[in-house]
Amino acid sequence: MNEWLKSLKTGTPQEGYELAILLARKGVAYTQPAEDIRKKLRTEYDENADSLTLASQVIAIHFQTVAAANNYWK
Amino acid sequence: MNEWLKSLKTGTPQEGYELAILLARKGVAYTQPAEDIRKKLRTEYDENADSLTLASQVIAIHFQTVAAANNYWK
Amino acid sequence: MNEWLKSLKTGTPQEGYELAILLARKGVAYTQPAEDIRKKLRTEYDENADSLTLASQVIAIHFQTVAAANNYWK
Amino acid sequence: MNEWLKSLKTGTPQEGYELAILLARKGVAYTQPAEDIRKKLRTEYDENADSLTLASQVIAIHFQTVAAANNYWK
Amino acid sequence: MNEWLKSLKTGTPQEGYELAILLARKGVAYTQPAEDIRKKLRTEYDENADSLTLASQVIAIHFQTVAAANNYWK
Amino acid sequence: MNEWLKSLKTGTPQEGYELAILLARKGVAYTQPAEDIRKKLRTEYDENADSLTLASQVIAIHFQTVAAANNYWK
Repeated sequence: MNEWLKSLKTGTPQEGYELAILLARKGVAYTQPAEDIRKKLRTEYDENADSLTLASQVIAIHFQTVAAANNYWK
Repeated sequence: MNEWLKSLKTGTPQEGYELAILLARKGVAYTQPAEDIRKKLRTEYDENADSLTLASQVIAIHFQTVAAANNYWK
Repeated sequence: MNEWLKSLKTGTPQEGYELAILLARKGVAYTQPAEDIRKKLRTEYDENADSLTLASQVIAIHFQTVAAANNYWK
Repeated sequence: MNEWLKSLKTGTPQEGYELAILLARKGVAYTQPAEDIRKKLRTEYDENADSLTLASQVIAIHFQTVAAANNYWK
Repeated sequence: MNEWLKSLKTGTPQEGYELAILLARKGVAYTQPAEDIRKKLRTEYDENADSLTLASQVIAIHFQTVAAANNYWK
Repeated sequence: MNEWLKSLKTGTPQEGYELAILLARKGVAYTQPAEDIRKKLRTEYDENADSLTLASQVIAIHFQTVAAANNYWK
């Protein structure tokens, strides 16, 4: 895969949160590399409450990592 | 998305908890940006015990991050 | 919401565990503020083994936070 | 509830693991205090593979806490 | 139960990973001590993708603990 | 099993992420060693949104470990 992750450092907490989203999505993309299948699946889980909460949970775990890497932007 | 997260610092643990709730909800909002769909889904999972526990779990993960960022409000 | 969380400090590990339970329940209460609905749901998941394990998991995550905040009551 | 948790300190890693099991079970007991219901549910999930894995996961989370409290028994 | 966990220290990261697997399995064994039932259940979840991912998750949580105990084998 | 994990150190965050993927997959491979069964299961969960999110979650947990082992590549 092309370079997509150079650093865990971000300028602001919000950029850190958005990096956490990217990290969560990449976990899916590495496991299912076919973009058309991911798009199809997206339509399904986008309208399922538990699927969205589960996606939010993966973001939360990555946000812990990114926040620690940035010393919590203190 | 507009700026919504300036800092992980909060004045009190309770404000930190409420920030954790915001962080959990934003994970859903980034994944499903359509507010009307989120509202519809909300009606469903609001009355499902496991969905609520799952939502509480995402809050718990974010609260770990916020609490660490505030040095546990010691 | 009224003030319900003043500090993560507790006198003993057991009080810390009980605070973790409160933190887990508050995550549900913020998401579903209607107490009558929560009571109804409670009857359901109280007799479902996986629901109870899931609830125990959220407590476990919060207990990590509370224990760290108290320096593990060393 | 009577006193059941005096300290997170244990003499050995294995005792720490067994404390983690106790912490996981207490999360269930606080949520469902009726022992007869818990016993009935136990019969069910004891023979369900995913339920057992889920129970093992809660133990794992508590073991992180207990291990940290004991400085990993170094 | 006999002594099965003397230390979280391992010589290499791979041995640490294998210790994490042991810790995950012990969580199941303590909850369901009957070996014949565990063997029967094993046949089931061994061919279920989500069950395997869930098992892998418990290993991941324990590996965090073991890695920290070994100072990440630095 | 042959040696497959010599170190948690990686040159870049992206290599660390890819190591986290390997760690997640190994958890499945140790639990279900038969490669043909894993391949068959892969076809199933690769097209299930929640299964992919769950896989992404295990990666996220391992990435926390790898990132800490590399001092977040600071």
